[in-house]
Amino acid sequence: MDSQDTRARIVRAAAELLQRQGYEGASVKPIALAAGASVSSVYHFFPGGKQELAVEAVRHGAAEYADLLREGLASSPDPAEGVAACARLMVSALKTSAWVDGCPVAVTALETVGRVPGIQQAADEALAHWQRLVSTAIQKAGVPADTADELASTVISTLEGAELLSRVRQDDLPLRRAATHLSQLVRLAVNPA
Amino acid sequence: MDSQDTRARIVRAAAELLQRQGYEGASVKPIALAAGASVSSVYHFFPGGKQELAVEAVRHGAAEYADLLREGLASSPDPAEGVAACARLMVSALKTSAWVDGCPVAVTALETVGRVPGIQQAADEALAHWQRLVSTAIQKAGVPADTADELASTVISTLEGAELLSRVRQDDLPLRRAATHLSQLVRLAVNPA
Repeated sequence: MDSQDTRARIVRAAAELLQRQGYEGASVKPIALAAGASVSSVYHFFPGGKQELAVEAVRHGAAEYADLLREGLASSPDPAEGVAACARLMVSALKTSAWVDGCPVAVTALETVGRVPGIQQAADEALAHWQRLVSTAIQKAGVPADTADELASTVISTLEGAELLSRVRQDDLPLRRAATHLSQLVRLAVNPA
Repeated sequence: MDSQDTRARIVRAAAELLQRQGYEGASVKPIALAAGASVSSVYHFFPGGKQELAVEAVRHGAAEYADLLREGLASSPDPAEGVAACARLMVSALKTSAWVDGCPVAVTALETVGRVPGIQQAADEALAHWQRLVSTAIQKAGVPADTADELASTVISTLEGAELLSRVRQDDLPLRRAATHLSQLVRLAVNPA
């Protein structure tokens, strides 16, 4: 078995467990079990154990969500449409997992703020990266960089929060409403009154 | 010592531990310790143990956040100003706790979606209550109920998400930007183009 495959399977299993149970609820043994790997092989790849694994899992989840944002934003030259498409892609992903699998960055980061600096840094980098993707798409429509950066911050806030509401309520309405309102905000920035 | 005092102290300690460490990370013993109560007195008030305590803690956090929303919304007859005031009150609360204490509903609910129905129901009721408070304030400015309800959903989503971003980044910018953009959206609803 290819060792990079094993490593990747362990990271995916950690990301899945973290987003379902949080940092405190996750531990190395069930992650190894879910990955079809031994506990010693988990420590071979991640000598820092759960904490190092959590940082990798946050990075993995961050990259997956960045892919979703890229796909949504690329679906239209109009960033107002692109942002709404991101929310719709999130609805599809959530429905596929029956509302169980959400953003692995959010819950892990919230739970460890001020306690596990490595995780917080990985989450901070993820948020900054997502914001740049959204800002770049808005700037392409002629919006100045400062305005686009500010709006991108709110786009990420709103998508994260609407995902939370949609998961807790097991209803896609919060995300669909967020799509409508974020489109309005982007349109206002592209065509100021 | 008054038994209602003890009960209230236990619920406050549970809410604090849950918002800092999440559901899986919290347990009855440290909650009892933080509340200055015995483990047996925790089980006296909450025979269902951690799960029952978590439901009460979510309700307690929900009521505190409802108070914050009421205060912010009541600070101005203009709901666009009121919503921005809510975000500013959140900034003050977060800075007071050095970004550690956030919404106890979010992290507990995210971590237990699909696994602990009692917590999910308490979180769902909290979100619905907050949304009604915001919707009522927007309706008072003459916005139709349907439009106000939809907008209130996005206001709550954005405030929750911006709190997450602000806590992870230890920076009040996401909440301050959310305040600006939510005000824009409320203004658009009050004075449609």
